[in-house]
Amino acid sequence: MTYQFIRFEVSDQIATVTLDRPDVMNAMHRPMIAELIRAFDQSDADDAVRAVIVTGAGRAFCAGADLSKGTDEFEKSALSNSARRPDGSFDYSAEAARDGGGSLALRIYNSRKPIIAAINGAAVGIGASMTLPMDVRLASENAKLGFVYARRGIVHECCSSFFLPRVVGISRALEWSMSGRVMPALELKDGGLVRDVLSPDELLPAARAIAAEIAGHTAPVSIALMRQMLWRGLEMSHPMEAHRVESRGILTRGRSADAKEGVASFVEKRAPHFPQNVTTDMPDYFPWWEEPRYS
Amino acid sequence: MTYQFIRFEVSDQIATVTLDRPDVMNAMHRPMIAELIRAFDQSDADDAVRAVIVTGAGRAFCAGADLSKGTDEFEKSALSNSARRPDGSFDYSAEAARDGGGSLALRIYNSRKPIIAAINGAAVGIGASMTLPMDVRLASENAKLGFVYARRGIVHECCSSFFLPRVVGISRALEWSMSGRVMPALELKDGGLVRDVLSPDELLPAARAIAAEIAGHTAPVSIALMRQMLWRGLEMSHPMEAHRVESRGILTRGRSADAKEGVASFVEKRAPHFPQNVTTDMPDYFPWWEEPRYS
Amino acid sequence: MTYQFIRFEVSDQIATVTLDRPDVMNAMHRPMIAELIRAFDQSDADDAVRAVIVTGAGRAFCAGADLSKGTDEFEKSALSNSARRPDGSFDYSAEAARDGGGSLALRIYNSRKPIIAAINGAAVGIGASMTLPMDVRLASENAKLGFVYARRGIVHECCSSFFLPRVVGISRALEWSMSGRVMPALELKDGGLVRDVLSPDELLPAARAIAAEIAGHTAPVSIALMRQMLWRGLEMSHPMEAHRVESRGILTRGRSADAKEGVASFVEKRAPHFPQNVTTDMPDYFPWWEEPRYS
Repeated sequence: MTYQFIRFEVSDQIATVTLDRPDVMNAMHRPMIAELIRAFDQSDADDAVRAVIVTGAGRAFCAGADLSKGTDEFEKSALSNSARRPDGSFDYSAEAARDGGGSLALRIYNSRKPIIAAINGAAVGIGASMTLPMDVRLASENAKLGFVYARRGIVHECCSSFFLPRVVGISRALEWSMSGRVMPALELKDGGLVRDVLSPDELLPAARAIAAEIAGHTAPVSIALMRQMLWRGLEMSHPMEAHRVESRGILTRGRSADAKEGVASFVEKRAPHFPQNVTTDMPDYFPWWEEPRYS
Repeated sequence: MTYQFIRFEVSDQIATVTLDRPDVMNAMHRPMIAELIRAFDQSDADDAVRAVIVTGAGRAFCAGADLSKGTDEFEKSALSNSARRPDGSFDYSAEAARDGGGSLALRIYNSRKPIIAAINGAAVGIGASMTLPMDVRLASENAKLGFVYARRGIVHECCSSFFLPRVVGISRALEWSMSGRVMPALELKDGGLVRDVLSPDELLPAARAIAAEIAGHTAPVSIALMRQMLWRGLEMSHPMEAHRVESRGILTRGRSADAKEGVASFVEKRAPHFPQNVTTDMPDYFPWWEEPRYS
Repeated sequence: MTYQFIRFEVSDQIATVTLDRPDVMNAMHRPMIAELIRAFDQSDADDAVRAVIVTGAGRAFCAGADLSKGTDEFEKSALSNSARRPDGSFDYSAEAARDGGGSLALRIYNSRKPIIAAINGAAVGIGASMTLPMDVRLASENAKLGFVYARRGIVHECCSSFFLPRVVGISRALEWSMSGRVMPALELKDGGLVRDVLSPDELLPAARAIAAEIAGHTAPVSIALMRQMLWRGLEMSHPMEAHRVESRGILTRGRSADAKEGVASFVEKRAPHFPQNVTTDMPDYFPWWEEPRYS
């Protein structure tokens, strides 16, 4: 696969996805969104990839929507005829009326591999919001991040109205969104948005260390299941719903070849070698949910 | 409009609502609740108001339900004939059986303007709970706050069983509610309930600074939409639901006069002057939810 | 009642439940789960018990599922014929296919008494997860805790996919679950999983102090109601739902003998003596929910 606006590199079972438009601070446009979605399809389809790191080329992570043509990037959807009815009103159910960032966030939400954001510099608007459905966020001391929507006259995108209050709590989500401030890395750590703040030189090694710990110690099928169990468990209305899904998991995974290897390697105090893969060995009850459609 | 138990003052686009029964530590009764609800109606209806500050006159913020007549304030509802059936049992669906604090909390939840609590002193029971649906909470060093319901023999009111676990997390919500302790300001900050603890002299200036930042930099219609997007996004069961609402927002707001001004002021590095107002320019899909009725 | 694998002791209105298989680090098996469920039935049925402490005998809290027979403990369910169909596939709806830890977690979730975990040492897998539906968690400096499922090749159990993201937030829940690390006590406090870290000698006294504060100051019926109001309030989709339940509570509790005593003792600045009990005086609207069945 080839990419024009991002780079996709695999080494040591870790895929690194790099936003690669450094001359415009990796500003996001529809073609870059499409490539990112394709990149997560690729990492899911490759059993050799155990974790994904997302970072930016140059000094920014992602400066947000490409505003080089004014509000044109915001309007892309509206310009599409298929989102307009003959009387000029919007057809909100039209595919063309979909926020592009939301499609990206939904793809990340459904990833079978854990994703680590290595936020190397400014991350604004969609650049901030796209990291929320990722599993771990690390920030360089140079990072700064803002949910600036209210200052541009627009609103949350990239499913951030769903993810932001879950990741940082409703109080910080409200305050950060109402002010639209751009915040330094330490405030992000205080707010629970990033796990650690690191020097620029330490950022990618720290992200790789987390990815390597996952790759070296855990069963890929377990990781793919548990990632969905936590996100979807968070939306369940009673622990009984989680109990039903977990019971299926314990029943099938508990007698799997992976479980035998997991227990044996633990008892023998050695590194595990899990035999099962996400492309071939997901249990029969997966997915246990019905994925909602846009319209 | 005139008020007897509160004060309502507007200056520099900021409304300040002051609980004004200092001789009884601003203890809450039904008439004060009714005036507070009317005050938020007024701030929503006035496009010149961009943010609201709520504070207390004298040394307390609000000492809770007025207990000067024993449990009479708790019983007000029960005393109403319309909540009693002929056989003496309660008609829980009756309007008269509604917790007054809950009506206030629901009104705050639906505010189109951001609300900042400046907790100047003791805030107990409903005095504590009424701040939970507000956007930012600041506390004086003199503030102390308690969810004392279990010590009075009653239960959560003012929708605090909904808001408290969302604002401070389920663990602190449980511990604070099970003990019924009154807690000092620093414990509130540790728990994420208040953003900052300030000296008494700094409290209102700090609240005004937050309000002024919102008033000076953000689009009112964006703020009104995003406030609802976050609260309601928190209750959605899948990010797809947020994606649908956000797509409508990006589609309509992305081509709005506000967005053009937001991008232009950003590019030109100047303060924005957003032309749209919440009384006249809310988009056609607002509200996107159906508001539930009490019974 | 007699127990073989746990101890159940009551003193000063506090029940202490001790996991008591110290020779195997209190490893969990089906008979111990059954006894724990019975212990919480006992504490709920005894009005003399106002709070429950759970701890472990010896140097561990609970080392997780008993792996002395390999994956046998995981497979217990699958070994049951009633979970297998004639064609060899699993009948996920069968009672025999239920995760044992989940049954325990659901029992704790429904407790009428507040439960305090005194984590004295290692708490791994189900040993960690079983503390999540408890009200307060304290840890000894010697405690270490891990959600190690991915390292054993299995998945979340004990309803931890429901409780973990609620207790520590989705970001930590993901990171802790993806890595499967065993974490020291201080990281647990940073993550909000435990309220305090104490020396081994101080652990049980601290737990007893919290329990005694509840027993000495609060109304048992209020506690039993509020515990459910918070957990179930967290799952409501709109504050109106909480308002309906709270209005019932304020209406009935506000005129109760407990409320009269709560207000009188407050006004008279003396310790309260609440007359009502959870076995006889729960209000008519309790439970206000319909408890879901497993299948």
